Amino acid sequence: MDKEKKWTQLWLTYSPRQDMGNGELVKYVSFSGFDRKHPIIENAWAELVKGVEGMLGITPDIYEELSSDDIISSEGGTQLCGGLKVLRQAQGIKPEGYRLTEKDGILTLNAADEKGLLYGFFHILRQIALEKTLRNTDILCEPDNPLRMMNHWDNMDGSIERGYSGNSFFFDKGEVLVDERTRDYARLAASVGINGAVLNNVNVKDQATWLITERYFDKVAEIARIFEGYGIKLFLSLNYAAPLELGGPDSADPLNEDVISWWKDKFSEVFAKIPNLGGFLVKADSEGRPGPFTYGRTQADGANMLADLVKPYGGIIIWRCFVYNCTQDWRDTKTDRARAGYDNFIEMDGDYHDNVILQIKNGPMDFQIREAVSPLLGGLTRTNQMLEVQVAQEYTGQQIDLCYLIPLFKEVLDFRTYCSPDTDTVADVVSGRTFGNKLCGMAAVSNTGNDANWTGNDLAAANFYGFGRLAYATSLSSEEIAQEWVGMTYSNDREVKETVVRLLMGSRNTYEKYTSPLGIGWMVTPNTHYGPSVDGYEYSRWGTYHRADHMGLGVDRTDSGTGYVRQYHEPNASRYNSVEECPEELLLFFHHLPYTHMLKSGKTLIQHIYDSHFEGVEEVEEMIRLWDGLRGCIPEDSYQLVRERFERQLYNAKEWRDQVNSYFYRKSGIVDEKNRAIF
Amino acid sequence: MDKEKKWTQLWLTYSPRQDMGNGELVKYVSFSGFDRKHPIIENAWAELVKGVEGMLGITPDIYEELSSDDIISSEGGTQLCGGLKVLRQAQGIKPEGYRLTEKDGILTLNAADEKGLLYGFFHILRQIALEKTLRNTDILCEPDNPLRMMNHWDNMDGSIERGYSGNSFFFDKGEVLVDERTRDYARLAASVGINGAVLNNVNVKDQATWLITERYFDKVAEIARIFEGYGIKLFLSLNYAAPLELGGPDSADPLNEDVISWWKDKFSEVFAKIPNLGGFLVKADSEGRPGPFTYGRTQADGANMLADLVKPYGGIIIWRCFVYNCTQDWRDTKTDRARAGYDNFIEMDGDYHDNVILQIKNGPMDFQIREAVSPLLGGLTRTNQMLEVQVAQEYTGQQIDLCYLIPLFKEVLDFRTYCSPDTDTVADVVSGRTFGNKLCGMAAVSNTGNDANWTGNDLAAANFYGFGRLAYATSLSSEEIAQEWVGMTYSNDREVKETVVRLLMGSRNTYEKYTSPLGIGWMVTPNTHYGPSVDGYEYSRWGTYHRADHMGLGVDRTDSGTGYVRQYHEPNASRYNSVEECPEELLLFFHHLPYTHMLKSGKTLIQHIYDSHFEGVEEVEEMIRLWDGLRGCIPEDSYQLVRERFERQLYNAKEWRDQVNSYFYRKSGIVDEKNRAIF
Repeated sequence: MDKEKKWTQLWLTYSPRQDMGNGELVKYVSFSGFDRKHPIIENAWAELVKGVEGMLGITPDIYEELSSDDIISSEGGTQLCGGLKVLRQAQGIKPEGYRLTEKDGILTLNAADEKGLLYGFFHILRQIALEKTLRNTDILCEPDNPLRMMNHWDNMDGSIERGYSGNSFFFDKGEVLVDERTRDYARLAASVGINGAVLNNVNVKDQATWLITERYFDKVAEIARIFEGYGIKLFLSLNYAAPLELGGPDSADPLNEDVISWWKDKFSEVFAKIPNLGGFLVKADSEGRPGPFTYGRTQADGANMLADLVKPYGGIIIWRCFVYNCTQDWRDTKTDRARAGYDNFIEMDGDYHDNVILQIKNGPMDFQIREAVSPLLGGLTRTNQMLEVQVAQEYTGQQIDLCYLIPLFKEVLDFRTYCSPDTDTVADVVSGRTFGNKLCGMAAVSNTGNDANWTGNDLAAANFYGFGRLAYATSLSSEEIAQEWVGMTYSNDREVKETVVRLLMGSRNTYEKYTSPLGIGWMVTPNTHYGPSVDGYEYSRWGTYHRADHMGLGVDRTDSGTGYVRQYHEPNASRYNSVEECPEELLLFFHHLPYTHMLKSGKTLIQHIYDSHFEGVEEVEEMIRLWDGLRGCIPEDSYQLVRERFERQLYNAKEWRDQVNSYFYRKSGIVDEKNRAIF
Repeated sequence: MDKEKKWTQLWLTYSPRQDMGNGELVKYVSFSGFDRKHPIIENAWAELVKGVEGMLGITPDIYEELSSDDIISSEGGTQLCGGLKVLRQAQGIKPEGYRLTEKDGILTLNAADEKGLLYGFFHILRQIALEKTLRNTDILCEPDNPLRMMNHWDNMDGSIERGYSGNSFFFDKGEVLVDERTRDYARLAASVGINGAVLNNVNVKDQATWLITERYFDKVAEIARIFEGYGIKLFLSLNYAAPLELGGPDSADPLNEDVISWWKDKFSEVFAKIPNLGGFLVKADSEGRPGPFTYGRTQADGANMLADLVKPYGGIIIWRCFVYNCTQDWRDTKTDRARAGYDNFIEMDGDYHDNVILQIKNGPMDFQIREAVSPLLGGLTRTNQMLEVQVAQEYTGQQIDLCYLIPLFKEVLDFRTYCSPDTDTVADVVSGRTFGNKLCGMAAVSNTGNDANWTGNDLAAANFYGFGRLAYATSLSSEEIAQEWVGMTYSNDREVKETVVRLLMGSRNTYEKYTSPLGIGWMVTPNTHYGPSVDGYEYSRWGTYHRADHMGLGVDRTDSGTGYVRQYHEPNASRYNSVEECPEELLLFFHHLPYTHMLKSGKTLIQHIYDSHFEGVEEVEEMIRLWDGLRGCIPEDSYQLVRERFERQLYNAKEWRDQVNSYFYRKSGIVDEKNRAIF
């Protein structure tokens, strides 16, 4: 931890590294085509200096104009032996992109724009941190996704909805906080390519409604300016009922002239007061939040009205698709929450204006450890789409249990939607490749808080890091990202890297094994969403059931059930509809099956439940053994902190194992073939 | 509702009544042997005046000395036609008792002391309210229980633990409240014979720890003086760790000299500053509260130390027996929470000093709708015992659902403990009749709050009323008490009385039918304790399990199970140990039985579960029909308020029915013989 600060620098710690010949390439730097007074350039330069000083013990210097003539072997005395040449090159490189090449001792960074330059510098720093030589580099990096956003669910009282890392560093006691941590947050986010951040919780209530008023403009503008210096657009979550709550018209009807006029004036004021404002995120008609449905209007009516009014300012409206009936009767087996997103949004496909983006959670339920990919993704073909994932581990261990989520995100991105003959994966759709959208991309619910280590569990920072990297460069593998993160955060020591990467890479499967089986999800303690409660949501209003009885379990979403499978393009629909063809990891998401159903492994369903739950706990025990082997190779405080979380994970895993196994044994009466302890 | 107040007067509304010849008997009143300036006498007189004025339109007057010579028929002109003669008579009447006789127009109240007089006046007012003639009265009333206490679980922030009637009227925002409602509370409590009240929650934390300090003395003393005027001793709940938290010694070890010395000084200060202080209630070593076990001492060590120190001031220590392991492993079937109270307290029987009272919950678990009677009651034979019941409907409908609890309390009081050859019921034990204790009685967790109607549901006031009446006169029947309450609160109209009494009298059985079956208890939503969650506590640390599997359910507490039955005297132990002899309503409390077990009714256990749950809901529907028939006969606002609660009760009852039935159907696979809807 930086001694002067109460928080760590995560992967930007910049501790000493082997030079690998990189020092020479960054000691002298020339700029061409960029205004060195531009805030982003100033910040990028400061970062480069800080990083190179920290890692290589060299202070980079500005050199007016670098050319290969300047380069003479270091034995030549006063002459340069290498340098970094930074050039603006708008053509041939996409916005926010850069090309990095090295030849004859000159490392050349051709950047499309200031952001491209910033990302290029972070690229250089990453290579130095990973102790990889920059010699012979030749790489073009362009963002796969136009928008790469963090959604913070921070409340103005300082709490964070589904936050597991302390309180907010943006808000406290109704006030907006701006301090050095704001800048460090921006540095960390920019270093992995994040270019947008929503400051406040999507559930906008009380004081947060007032963020778009004079009360908070100054402070929000300060944050916006800091973000601007790191290429991050500031977004706010909007309360759809703001007109009523802020003393405007007594309505939020999107077709009401007074309402429209109120919003028009409001946006004129807000965009004038807050620089670098990208637009707004809206959760409407969801889980008790007001919205256009309240007034008998469509979601498109609501989104378009706001979008038209922010358009003059270059603003966009990001509209969440998390709309479902959250007061379902558990007795009702026809209503299927999984259907809701698609049913609510598909009809209006094509009706959304071009600065509206629909933000769609990766699955149709809610960030479970395993669920099908949302059929809206690629189901919509004429609407801007943004993929929403949750880096905050709400259902996936709450930053107590280790769960590296990048493999899960990769699966979603790689999913073939069959929405077009080719270029049809989710990654294609949300990047704009499939349908040519300009406004689209990926958003993540953040896992940060004001804990010293930002993410509660030191290892959970890999999810923040990984999300950003993946959103910028989707083709990176989960393992590559993990290696980068470990190398930058801990060390490039082979044993450390291999061990931590192994821990990260196995963690999602392990978590799945000891929690809910085969895609059924839930079985989690209501409200807190940590720890098991097999029937916790079974008789509730949330639409999240496993339908277990003495014969079997699972939700029938086939043609003979809720018909949800038909929301997919073929051949996905038929594949999911068939017990034989359905991917086994999603079997209970799509089918209700007897405990005696035979899996491809030759095990019955019930035996699979027993076995996987015993295995899950054994794997956690193995993880702890691996972690213990690292003692002395990583900072002791990090070792201890993570060790303590692993202990809690083991306790949690055992609770899951025993409760799930006992529940199904007590219900089925079928004994474990191996006669292990079930209660 | 009294127009000048924001709260009602409940059964002391004193609305006009038929005279029944009572007016003549209370118009003139003479006192002999009492100091009319005594606060209790002043209050009693004011109450009589208020009541008689309100109900009969007559203002009672003081007459110096009444004798039968004064009595002449009303046609005789200026002479009196009757009167009330109040005499002190210490001999032949127990403390707090009175004799009321009428002869030749003179109603004579012989009261043992001021409290007896106060209770006598309330007796007279009750008869007037019930429109019963006082002519030919000849009744001796003496309290069955020396102590008749209300325990308020009010917190100093104004919240009430397990409160369902608004916030506290004793505390708010860390301050002690004293206002007109304090007096009205005392009047209501005294009117039913309550003679002690614990102001603050047994879980004493934060500010409440400071109630025994200068910070709060003045206000607490004010309340104590108001209470004193109504014969109510004030008690406080004590934080056993107070020495540590109030800056005393760094220990709460009851054998530590510094600790003893600290408490000695503290009590000297507290008793000097707070008049009318009866002593303290202590919850130690329970649910996270500190206690003597923390220091390796016994419960007796802890209680006796405090008791010895309060003895010089006439104080008593009431020590709760709610001590159990609240971090049980659900996998552990040997540990039985039901055993804990007995196991923790029986060995020290006889070691508690004579101003210690052990306060014992009616059942060994926690105020369920049906559980066995605590084996500590009568198990202890050389220790002062107080029966604790819960008038607050924590597990019994939370003052939304109607649940008249007096029949439950009566069952407990009538329970034969066999602790002695005769005079062995719980009522005998806690009244002191069995073992000759002087300090003993009954305590109730209060159901009051600052709602206008005091108890949330208007009908829930019958439980407060009934508890007080029962504690004073245990031989009253549940029905008599209900009739009194209805007559005083609503009207003596026969239809109103019959209907409301019927609603009250059936309500406990109805509630039981639609909730957990045959004494097993729980199956309730964790934490809130309202509404069903069959497995809600099944895998938790609270020791409250039903152990249902695909074959059957119930907790085996017999010789072959946890052995809990042996905590009872014979023949109870053998009776409970036998499936055949065990009272059927407690069958699952004592036995684990298959769903196919045949009950005496000729139904299987599973069919009983189905049937009783359907019946429960039908009975609620019938209750609503009955209530609707009262519209126009009772005040409309009361009709509406209760009607709304009944709607919520019906919703709740259906949830219970469907969740419990579906749960057991899904587990057993056994269909309902009548093929009703089970999900």
